[in-house]
Amino acid sequence: MQSVLPKAVRELTQELTRLPGVGPKTAKRLAIYLLRQPYSSVSRLAGALKDLHANVRICRTCFSLAEAEECLICKDSARDRSVVCVVEEALDVEAFERTDVYTGVYHILGGVLSPLEGVTHDQLNFKQLFARLENEAIKELIIGLDHNMESEVTARYILENVSKDNLKVTRLARGLPTGGDIEFADSLTLSAAFQGRSRL
Amino acid sequence: MQSVLPKAVRELTQELTRLPGVGPKTAKRLAIYLLRQPYSSVSRLAGALKDLHANVRICRTCFSLAEAEECLICKDSARDRSVVCVVEEALDVEAFERTDVYTGVYHILGGVLSPLEGVTHDQLNFKQLFARLENEAIKELIIGLDHNMESEVTARYILENVSKDNLKVTRLARGLPTGGDIEFADSLTLSAAFQGRSRL
Repeated sequence: MQSVLPKAVRELTQELTRLPGVGPKTAKRLAIYLLRQPYSSVSRLAGALKDLHANVRICRTCFSLAEAEECLICKDSARDRSVVCVVEEALDVEAFERTDVYTGVYHILGGVLSPLEGVTHDQLNFKQLFARLENEAIKELIIGLDHNMESEVTARYILENVSKDNLKVTRLARGLPTGGDIEFADSLTLSAAFQGRSRL
Repeated sequence: MQSVLPKAVRELTQELTRLPGVGPKTAKRLAIYLLRQPYSSVSRLAGALKDLHANVRICRTCFSLAEAEECLICKDSARDRSVVCVVEEALDVEAFERTDVYTGVYHILGGVLSPLEGVTHDQLNFKQLFARLENEAIKELIIGLDHNMESEVTARYILENVSKDNLKVTRLARGLPTGGDIEFADSLTLSAAFQGRSRL
């Protein structure tokens, strides 16, 4: 059966279906929703999409998202360049920055090693990380990756390929999240919380 | 804390947050996802958005979505103009057309009566429906609304305001959906299924 919806609605539906988590029904609903919105609001969304690629660059130092050659953090002279936190992607930087605790800089890997998904070390920004460690006066490397299998393998790969004297390699603490319920915590988290327990 | 994401990403995130069901986190994820897609694909989405309002009109007869003055169904001379199915919105037409069973035309109300949500009869296309019934040779009016309280009230309003001789007003059958599980059916549906039972 051919759709009776106008071509413009079908075309927008089709484009929206390409977005992650948007199925054909949601896409159709969104298209109809947008049709009911004032033109100015839909036009602003279209404009923001058009501007996205034109105005976003990749920081030449840490590979985070940037508006110029370097990102805001790498450009900031107040940041401690002797501490580098390795993260998976730019959104992780956003999350760490929200804490207001970290004053060092970052290095975005662009993913984690995952043989199952075909992500090998030459697809990630490892080479550039090792070059930074070689050329810059870096004292501490913090592995700021999630706690899962792929990140474990990725952390190990970094550790094996780092050959710098006096470099401290650390990783984020593992344990119970704030507000987390012991009753529902998985056993790996609980084991880590036990092993990492500190004196009151 | 100020976001370290580039302005273009923040702006797109903000626009995406206006969509129904898209929270700030999903919006950020979508923006980053789109950043990773080729420019051509993001540009196509932007173009489809721009075209939406320009190329969609409302059918002057049935108030469905159209590309011209009349929608594809109203324009189709093969459709039976003596049967009109009243539906809530354009997407319902899509659903009915998928069945390939219905050969009549439609009338889109644009919603159902809902005092709680402030939807009164002057906001819906009732007047135009009654005018159609008066001026056209319509023999049957099918109430093609959902089975719920608001639709019940809306159907009753139509019934009370229709004054045409020899007009048959019908409504869709109520009962168990195909593949539905009796165990999980609500009692209203089961009652309707009992009352509407047919001879095998």
